[in-house]
Amino acid sequence: MDNTTLKYFKTQLPGLAGGYSLDVPDCEIKLNQNENAWDWPATLKQEVFERVRDLPWNRYPPFQPDAFVAKVASHIGADAEQVLVGNGSNELLYAIFVSTLERGRKVVIPQPTFTVYKLLANLLGADIAVEGLDEELQFDAEALETASQDASVVVLATPNNPTGSVIDPTDLEHLVNTSGALWVIDEAYFEFHGETAIELTRNCRNLVVLRTFSKALATAGLRFGCMVAHPEARPIFSAAKLPYNLNIFTMAAVETAIDNAVTLKSRVDEIKRERERVARRLREYKGCKVYPSRANFILFETNRDPRELWKAMVSRGVLVRDVSNYPRLAKALRVSIGRPEENDAFLKALEYAITVVA
Amino acid sequence: MDNTTLKYFKTQLPGLAGGYSLDVPDCEIKLNQNENAWDWPATLKQEVFERVRDLPWNRYPPFQPDAFVAKVASHIGADAEQVLVGNGSNELLYAIFVSTLERGRKVVIPQPTFTVYKLLANLLGADIAVEGLDEELQFDAEALETASQDASVVVLATPNNPTGSVIDPTDLEHLVNTSGALWVIDEAYFEFHGETAIELTRNCRNLVVLRTFSKALATAGLRFGCMVAHPEARPIFSAAKLPYNLNIFTMAAVETAIDNAVTLKSRVDEIKRERERVARRLREYKGCKVYPSRANFILFETNRDPRELWKAMVSRGVLVRDVSNYPRLAKALRVSIGRPEENDAFLKALEYAITVVA
Repeated sequence: MDNTTLKYFKTQLPGLAGGYSLDVPDCEIKLNQNENAWDWPATLKQEVFERVRDLPWNRYPPFQPDAFVAKVASHIGADAEQVLVGNGSNELLYAIFVSTLERGRKVVIPQPTFTVYKLLANLLGADIAVEGLDEELQFDAEALETASQDASVVVLATPNNPTGSVIDPTDLEHLVNTSGALWVIDEAYFEFHGETAIELTRNCRNLVVLRTFSKALATAGLRFGCMVAHPEARPIFSAAKLPYNLNIFTMAAVETAIDNAVTLKSRVDEIKRERERVARRLREYKGCKVYPSRANFILFETNRDPRELWKAMVSRGVLVRDVSNYPRLAKALRVSIGRPEENDAFLKALEYAITVVA
Repeated sequence: MDNTTLKYFKTQLPGLAGGYSLDVPDCEIKLNQNENAWDWPATLKQEVFERVRDLPWNRYPPFQPDAFVAKVASHIGADAEQVLVGNGSNELLYAIFVSTLERGRKVVIPQPTFTVYKLLANLLGADIAVEGLDEELQFDAEALETASQDASVVVLATPNNPTGSVIDPTDLEHLVNTSGALWVIDEAYFEFHGETAIELTRNCRNLVVLRTFSKALATAGLRFGCMVAHPEARPIFSAAKLPYNLNIFTMAAVETAIDNAVTLKSRVDEIKRERERVARRLREYKGCKVYPSRANFILFETNRDPRELWKAMVSRGVLVRDVSNYPRLAKALRVSIGRPEENDAFLKALEYAITVVA
């Protein structure tokens, strides 16, 4: 498109050119989005319908859903005055970035990681630093400290997607306490790891923790996430968030999810066992490098062309994520851990793919 | 809060200080948010439950919901390649602003109007011009032309909230065609008026139309809106929008709403008749000025203190919107048009309030 005719757009920014995209052929076995492979039981879905049936759909949701926010806060172990809720944690990250980033400001986004961080930062014209992970794609506290010196914001996911690596809690505490930057810690995969920085948010004004219901809690279709900030910082982030952002159905579903969290998360231990089983098998394959993961997926590299492997697996009905276009991952694929039989199908499809791809 | 300790926030911006707020005492009769007073029939709610029951809640919504977008586009009379969908039209306005505004850029937001426009523009540090409405709060084409000369964006609602005024279609076409700015036309109240700029979007690259399902379509609780842009501009706006922004329930509800639009919109004519009835009554009151409205609400001024009137009406269980803190509306209140008996209750409560307020 001829951009000179659309001069109202901001000077060409990388984020405005592309946006998030995803190649999704229809496959029977879907291991490309780190979802929980077990759907909600029908009884729980029905419970949501009952909750929402008598609500007035013609009316706006409550302006201050205090009871709802308190329930979410209690579930994740935070105080209500620390929590904001959104349509997925991405919506909250957007509000955080709008509050803190603009042209001429710097954000540290250690690469490789979840692509949306960089897309959003680009939209605001921020300068992006990519340091923070070492040669083995593990968090490097020294590199993070150096990169964050003149930054406004640091964003890191722990466990990180797609590497599966985690930051040491002592390192994180030291970094946050000695930094003038805002540290945004995305704990989307928290339940598969078990360590959280939420406790730190009570004392650190420059720390925000993001959580999602899309992974362990099996609620990706409902798009719910939340953030935890220091009580003094929360109102500023809140002002960058739209009013009435959650609809009545999302709130009903999240309430039901919290009341039945034990049921919805009941597969987490099995997923972790399966993760280790799949990792062991992959490590047996010649030329296959498997990164240690604390999440519900595995990053691995082979000595074959990853795009060709991906295609061959798709031809066998197994969809994994081709991450070979991510920085530093030219040889890598990422596979979500599904049901045992799905993981077996993945291993079988990969063996086939390795056999047919040069 | 001591902002020097939170230096990662952008230089103090007005939008970050406040945010949207709403005073909502619990009242039996709710005429403060321009909602459609008639809830969905139970059978239609059940239809939504049936649509969503067999979907996998553990999976993300479709990445490219093409059929859904095509259905929305067809409903509003646009082409699918022109349409973006969001959790309320506000989410799309946010994406439009992020694509176009930053510090040093100018946006025209004729005042008084819906407060969220200004809050979002402030978040991005844009300069805001307030011209565009004449002394009678009607759109002034000449003032708009002058104000938009050096602007990146012009935002106007037609019918405008809270004034109820509309822009002349010929004026709008001329303004858009001779302007280098992006014109964002919020048609939230379209169904109560009947005129749309959607046809113009096919040829004008610098025009965007916003629509919502929260008003005539009685779906405020589900938070759905959409935007129509020129096909060449749409991808740029799309890149500023989060992926998977709509959840599966919103999509199911919107599909049901479109399939049953005749039912859901069946009260529009009655609302318009009631609007004229209420306006006639208000005009009879001494010292009461009623602005002509093409929407489902009425703006009126009295010679009493509006805050005191509002309080007195609340004490009688009737909630209207106190807009006296809006620019140029120091004496005004806004009332939504509800069911006939609710409108009667409003008139009665106002008569009482005028009697007791000095």
